[in-house]
Amino acid sequence: MNIVIIGLGNIGGSFAEAIREGGGGHNVYAIDVDEEALSLAEKEQLIKKGFTDPKDIIPEADLIIFAVYPRVIVDIIDQYYSLFRDNAIITDVTGVKRKIIAEIEEKLPPEVDFIFGHPMAGRENRGLKYASSEVFKGANYLITPTERNKKENIEFLKGFIKGLGFRNISEISPEFHDEVIGFTSQLAHVIAISLINSDDADRNTKKYTGDSYRDLTRITNINEKLWPELFIMNKDFLQKHIDDFTFQLEKLSRAIKDEDIATMEEMMTESRRRYHDLHDLEMPDQ
Amino acid sequence: MNIVIIGLGNIGGSFAEAIREGGGGHNVYAIDVDEEALSLAEKEQLIKKGFTDPKDIIPEADLIIFAVYPRVIVDIIDQYYSLFRDNAIITDVTGVKRKIIAEIEEKLPPEVDFIFGHPMAGRENRGLKYASSEVFKGANYLITPTERNKKENIEFLKGFIKGLGFRNISEISPEFHDEVIGFTSQLAHVIAISLINSDDADRNTKKYTGDSYRDLTRITNINEKLWPELFIMNKDFLQKHIDDFTFQLEKLSRAIKDEDIATMEEMMTESRRRYHDLHDLEMPDQ
Repeated sequence: MNIVIIGLGNIGGSFAEAIREGGGGHNVYAIDVDEEALSLAEKEQLIKKGFTDPKDIIPEADLIIFAVYPRVIVDIIDQYYSLFRDNAIITDVTGVKRKIIAEIEEKLPPEVDFIFGHPMAGRENRGLKYASSEVFKGANYLITPTERNKKENIEFLKGFIKGLGFRNISEISPEFHDEVIGFTSQLAHVIAISLINSDDADRNTKKYTGDSYRDLTRITNINEKLWPELFIMNKDFLQKHIDDFTFQLEKLSRAIKDEDIATMEEMMTESRRRYHDLHDLEMPDQ
Repeated sequence: MNIVIIGLGNIGGSFAEAIREGGGGHNVYAIDVDEEALSLAEKEQLIKKGFTDPKDIIPEADLIIFAVYPRVIVDIIDQYYSLFRDNAIITDVTGVKRKIIAEIEEKLPPEVDFIFGHPMAGRENRGLKYASSEVFKGANYLITPTERNKKENIEFLKGFIKGLGFRNISEISPEFHDEVIGFTSQLAHVIAISLINSDDADRNTKKYTGDSYRDLTRITNINEKLWPELFIMNKDFLQKHIDDFTFQLEKLSRAIKDEDIATMEEMMTESRRRYHDLHDLEMPDQ
């Protein structure tokens, strides 16, 4: 089939690589503003051909993968919706779902099936040169079907994603997606940014870090052009998660202040229990 | 020389393994209440002999490494201070320094040189079976000399530690140690515990996690018998770091609520700049 990747950066390039490795004999094309990235990808046979103008290839696409900023997806749909092939399947990789789904579904031609998705795979560095199918291996993938989506297309997309190396593909509602991602991804980023920015810059902290600090700040190499928009699109859930986190932080902080060992032990035992549950480990006796 | 490791758990066992790998022909002994761990270590030739009663081996020790809870160090010094060999060098691995140094130095015989130290190496799992010299490789080590310590003993200890695989050995004051560790290690643990405990337990969150959440909660498998004591011993600095972190968190939270993109972008650009500084990377143009 003809697959068109829109946005050949880290994520788009990783899709191209994973599709090539998965076999299947697809024709993979890409659309990007960066001609250099396109010709590099052609030279490395990551794609069959690159295009800077969407209208030159969108009409040929059986499957379109949007790997661009949310507002660019909306713009492209707006501008080119009449060019999509009937029965084309479209998907995306946007980190929050309710708002973008509402905005796009009202613009779509009836015969085009946009199934929204979210690969939960690392992508802290921007650009094609960081693309790698490796990050997909064993990672989780969330898809958020709506009433518009055809069952057979959902099944097709799940099989396609599986072939790229992802392990668990969960079908969840856009609401639940945004609730849980607001916690596991967005809150984590809010915390990491706040932590590294609270460092005393005169202390030369890096000489005194262990794994803890490096782990907690790994995701601070954040794309400041993308994330504010994602935070705003999900601010109701995100705010609730920040509040719940702050409640726990204040409780622990108060226990430290009061030298309340019993409360600290209880919170740590609970965190240890949750750690073991998260990693499917049995909690050892102490 | 005769080296006695007191406490043959994860850290003590890792020392034993690293000493064996470092060569040097030392006689390594261990003291522990766990006879099974001692005989396992003897069988694996990790130690020459194990003892449950400190008085049977402390008089022979040229170098003593305390790898036990802070209060146990104080108890042992209290009970056996008259048995230490003249010119014995002692060190420890306690995560905070001011309080324990003050408490121990007033009890020490004049001819015994206790040089306090802190290997910044992972140790989330307890027990000898998790011991491994690997975690020391390339890790940072902090030592906090005081006026009591002899220059030549400090130099000896630094050389010894280097031989175990550590990369940077920094000499810093106990005050600065507690200030910086309160940030890089203790605050990180406070945050991780608060994050995992704020999870909605009914959501089965683990199906929807990416690397972010797993990174930020890796250190939640925490020893609840040790850490409350460490937090309390350092509560002045730790409280200050929690306050600084909370300030940043509230600032970012307010920017999200107000949809203040400029402030969010500024905070993210700053966090990205600090990420690159932490990892000695050049910040790319965006």
